[in-house]
Amino acid sequence: MAHIPTQPGLPGISSLFAFRPETAKPMRELAHVLLYSESSLSSGDREVIATYVSSRNQCVFCTQSHAAAARAHLKEDASIVDDVLLNGVNASVSDKLKSLLTIAGKVQKGGRIVTDEDVALAKSLGATDMEIHDTVLIAAAFSMFNRYVDGLASFTPQDPADYVEMGVRMASVGYIPPKS
Amino acid sequence: MAHIPTQPGLPGISSLFAFRPETAKPMRELAHVLLYSESSLSSGDREVIATYVSSRNQCVFCTQSHAAAARAHLKEDASIVDDVLLNGVNASVSDKLKSLLTIAGKVQKGGRIVTDEDVALAKSLGATDMEIHDTVLIAAAFSMFNRYVDGLASFTPQDPADYVEMGVRMASVGYIPPKS
Repeated sequence: MAHIPTQPGLPGISSLFAFRPETAKPMRELAHVLLYSESSLSSGDREVIATYVSSRNQCVFCTQSHAAAARAHLKEDASIVDDVLLNGVNASVSDKLKSLLTIAGKVQKGGRIVTDEDVALAKSLGATDMEIHDTVLIAAAFSMFNRYVDGLASFTPQDPADYVEMGVRMASVGYIPPKS
Repeated sequence: MAHIPTQPGLPGISSLFAFRPETAKPMRELAHVLLYSESSLSSGDREVIATYVSSRNQCVFCTQSHAAAARAHLKEDASIVDDVLLNGVNASVSDKLKSLLTIAGKVQKGGRIVTDEDVALAKSLGATDMEIHDTVLIAAAFSMFNRYVDGLASFTPQDPADYVEMGVRMASVGYIPPKS
């Protein structure tokens, strides 16, 4: 049971967003810019980074929901998601994405362990300054989202089907609720 | 030197906010709601929680700047800040604040280790559901801000005087820049 009274039936972060709309608004906006808005990194790759960080933080709700969003974005390449969940930076992905996952994995542990060499390698493989920035901030932001969801023990659905539907919605409209 | 080209002279997170205004906007808004907007927890206590988490993450820029903001809010009680930095949950603060610092310290390590007992103790000492929520989210958000600042190796001023001025400004206007 969640540590605070949340609306029954709402899963994970949605129940916390409903509890405190004033903080939900900027958190949704941050996720939307980082994962869904126009970027030279595809939304699929960005959702893979978010999934990887959430998995390392053992946040089941965020891992399952963002894995589903990544699969919805990646379509025929969706198997990348399970490869990264299983094999981390040794997954069969591009060297550039591996170098970004390495940076994200370090940020998940702590910002101070990212080295000049980690960043130089990513840049030599084609990562732009903006892509480095966004990778670090996606990993930092999921270090927040994961702790928020689990620190309040919000409801984690057990039925995989719930996440498929969630992921399809996240991949199609992003993270800002449509104006009613 | 920062891992991405930031504007010389801008300290810490300000240099990153200038690099990426699209993510700066929701991050500033989140900090403003959590630390500065109306709440039953004083801004002084909320800045102490932010400082405590930043210190545990060894983020010098965030620790120094939020310690300065906490001191500016707490005025004659400013010595609490150094007491918490030195002694953590054994500092001479109220039992309620100790129970919230205990929860924040657990969230800093990982959301999953917060227990029902931690939350029950805080509630028995007078913490409301909203205060529990905000404590968890402040600790989660600083797990993001700290990783963002250090993961990109942003400029950390060495002159303590820079932080005093910063803290006074943070305590007087909060985190959303005034409309020009």
